[in-house]
Amino acid sequence: MTAATRRLPMIEVLRGVLGDAGVIFDGASMARYLTDWSGDHKGRALAILRPASTAEVRDAVKICGQSGLTIVPQGGNTGLVAASMSTDADHTAVISLERMNRIRQLDAENFTIRVDAGCTLQQVKDACEVADLLFPLALGAQGSCQIGGNVATNAGGVNVLCYGMMRDIILGLEVVMPDGELWNGFSGLRKDNRGYDLKQLFIGSEGTLGIITGVELKLFPKPSKVETVYVGVASFEDAMRLFRDTRRACSDLLTAFEVIGEECVSLARLVHPELAVPIAAPVHVLMEASCSGAIDLRRLLENVLAEAMEDGLVTGAFLAESVAQARCFWAIREGLVEGQARRGYHVRTDLSVPLSGVPALIERARGIVASKYPGWTSIAYGHAGDGNVHFNVLPPQDMGEPAARAIGVSIETDLYGLVTTAGGSISAEHGIGRSRKDVFWSLLPPIHKRMLKAVKSAFDPDGLMNPGCLFPEEKELA
Amino acid sequence: MTAATRRLPMIEVLRGVLGDAGVIFDGASMARYLTDWSGDHKGRALAILRPASTAEVRDAVKICGQSGLTIVPQGGNTGLVAASMSTDADHTAVISLERMNRIRQLDAENFTIRVDAGCTLQQVKDACEVADLLFPLALGAQGSCQIGGNVATNAGGVNVLCYGMMRDIILGLEVVMPDGELWNGFSGLRKDNRGYDLKQLFIGSEGTLGIITGVELKLFPKPSKVETVYVGVASFEDAMRLFRDTRRACSDLLTAFEVIGEECVSLARLVHPELAVPIAAPVHVLMEASCSGAIDLRRLLENVLAEAMEDGLVTGAFLAESVAQARCFWAIREGLVEGQARRGYHVRTDLSVPLSGVPALIERARGIVASKYPGWTSIAYGHAGDGNVHFNVLPPQDMGEPAARAIGVSIETDLYGLVTTAGGSISAEHGIGRSRKDVFWSLLPPIHKRMLKAVKSAFDPDGLMNPGCLFPEEKELA
Repeated sequence: MTAATRRLPMIEVLRGVLGDAGVIFDGASMARYLTDWSGDHKGRALAILRPASTAEVRDAVKICGQSGLTIVPQGGNTGLVAASMSTDADHTAVISLERMNRIRQLDAENFTIRVDAGCTLQQVKDACEVADLLFPLALGAQGSCQIGGNVATNAGGVNVLCYGMMRDIILGLEVVMPDGELWNGFSGLRKDNRGYDLKQLFIGSEGTLGIITGVELKLFPKPSKVETVYVGVASFEDAMRLFRDTRRACSDLLTAFEVIGEECVSLARLVHPELAVPIAAPVHVLMEASCSGAIDLRRLLENVLAEAMEDGLVTGAFLAESVAQARCFWAIREGLVEGQARRGYHVRTDLSVPLSGVPALIERARGIVASKYPGWTSIAYGHAGDGNVHFNVLPPQDMGEPAARAIGVSIETDLYGLVTTAGGSISAEHGIGRSRKDVFWSLLPPIHKRMLKAVKSAFDPDGLMNPGCLFPEEKELA
Repeated sequence: MTAATRRLPMIEVLRGVLGDAGVIFDGASMARYLTDWSGDHKGRALAILRPASTAEVRDAVKICGQSGLTIVPQGGNTGLVAASMSTDADHTAVISLERMNRIRQLDAENFTIRVDAGCTLQQVKDACEVADLLFPLALGAQGSCQIGGNVATNAGGVNVLCYGMMRDIILGLEVVMPDGELWNGFSGLRKDNRGYDLKQLFIGSEGTLGIITGVELKLFPKPSKVETVYVGVASFEDAMRLFRDTRRACSDLLTAFEVIGEECVSLARLVHPELAVPIAAPVHVLMEASCSGAIDLRRLLENVLAEAMEDGLVTGAFLAESVAQARCFWAIREGLVEGQARRGYHVRTDLSVPLSGVPALIERARGIVASKYPGWTSIAYGHAGDGNVHFNVLPPQDMGEPAARAIGVSIETDLYGLVTTAGGSISAEHGIGRSRKDVFWSLLPPIHKRMLKAVKSAFDPDGLMNPGCLFPEEKELA
């Protein structure tokens, strides 16, 4: 009996519970769930399950458990570390949350919203906007990433500066545990000190502890004014000084502070050839400030910029005169990401260090690339106000992909070594997933390894949830 | 051989490691560590250990483990639920962090500070202020509570509205685990997605998973302007409407929004007989807004108040003209707490509900007291902007304490039942400790109990840390 024949009865059981639309097991239809955004990974699975309700998720998990199947939970499949990439065609089912996409309840008085985990981030943001409220998480992938995946990866993005990571804007979760039991961690409460805050464990757990089926989020008054500024500075040191001064002068109304090395501009031009880049300077800074009341935000920023010019900190500054101009400024930041994707394979990192360490990190990383990897191009940009730098490295244009990938591994190792020495993180926002688990575990002290394993064993003792993600496979576990 | 004789050799071992100042075991000197702030509890312990460094904490924990002693970690002993109250004179040592009170490192560029867990909250706040920075946690007990205890209890206070609970302003922890191993969870990073965020487990763990020895905190620019407003409104409904409108109009620069039922004013007068209370209204609201830049905060608030007066939402409003007047406004809020303590034993709660549920909670709680407990006085005040109400009940002045305590238990049960029905929490900030563990466990669904126990077992499999706190004693565990 082949694996394909063996699995047929199980598929029938799953179909009986989830309906025809709830079970996909032919190769062509499964492909979409087994190819990741970057194209770097191709996965395998026995079937894709698409439950339409929390009850169906519970049923699916129980059936998988009874059938000896492990489970890979999947949101919008936009992650960058292959955390939702199933690799086993015989014993693993992907559970996609995409059919669970209801806004359950928006409570404008409580500044909260409760949604299905399969809602896209954009859908949640839109629902809030209608009620004159803001859900602040903002990511490039927001049209397709799902809110449950944002929780499971503790998503970041451009507005962390003011509103925090996903962890900071979650009030409650609903989770189906590996045994199919439902944990209801909803409360709508801003303050609740009843014992361990269990929801924290699922935030950033990358599907290794349970399946998030519902999410309750903190909302904010929708800003009535947004001001966007594009400035040039002489160095990353000056960018960080500007951040410190501006943060204070704007009373934490700063919602974004992005740095862009000037080398990134040509990447943005790959996407928008006509792009008007208002300044020429070694480092560009894109700032955004927002408020919801009668604050004269524009004058506040004019003063900040005037002072920074006077101090010689800023070499050129443009305060957007219109929404259209603000969009042009953001097109530079967004375009460079797309432009770099067009260049094909490249080394992609999301390093973080203490704020004071940002300039040295970039300088040293550039030095390593320049001296050890001739022909490769360093690209530095990111959420400098959070100490988070995307330091990426593009291969020479004439290098074939296999050769580039081989060298890329070595570059990555050098960059991870550098950030670790600087007391920083190899993963500020993208996570560990499958791509980074080896380097992650190789850098951990023994007690931290024991603690991670203790948590995993406490919630998923049989290792049913997302095997191979975040943790080494059992046979690899020391 | 008596217990006292049996324990002598162990005391000598501990003295050898911690020095004479590090071990207290005579009854008179131990009393201070075994009496809680409220005077409600008297504890017992074999000894009080006072390690002066993280290394000494590790040694003490290891010796306790080898000697079969359990451990109660203790900070400033200002908690309200007996979480640091040892109750066993034969097998338990209290480990006080009071000698570990160094500011380790303030990094103004990174907006962070790293401190010993035994620093008082005030000491940390003062160290930040010198550097023109703010550590925002603000509690009545800040002169004596310790920062490690603030972490272990996830402390709240009056500034949660703007800055969050303790959980939200912690960047890293250093913890001695029950086996004496050291977990270094410091990083100084604002963004770090390397696997489970283990520090979250220790925040609010009430000493049941390990001993917090070091804390790394997020800092903020010190506000350069603070405006304080005292207003009268007709009802708690109107207070909550005012909150919604003001939050938006002030662009989340609101740092406090406290409600005070008019019945509380006479309690404040017990402490400050000369107190000038600027308004007469069923509900008083004390608001504070802060900013660090050139925002015209005063005009912002004047506009907010003018609009609220026009709408008939506010019946009287005073914007403090001076720091002295602002202090007078706060003296009402702080005095009522002290005044109520002077009345001796009373039912003390810290309930939370969704913001929209605050008025109904107070109205129903008052109804229960009025109808079932004649002669008792309801007191309602609290952090309404967080949905957190201190609904306390004072016994009739002529009732003896034993009788009052007996009835108090029944009132507490009624209030806990009420808040649970409303989907709220029996403990918004004070925690569970020993005082509330029975009611806490009686209200938990089975899966939540299993998850809490799984976490406890994962980190403290032998139950060495703070037995009797948060969890039922082993014999009671179902």
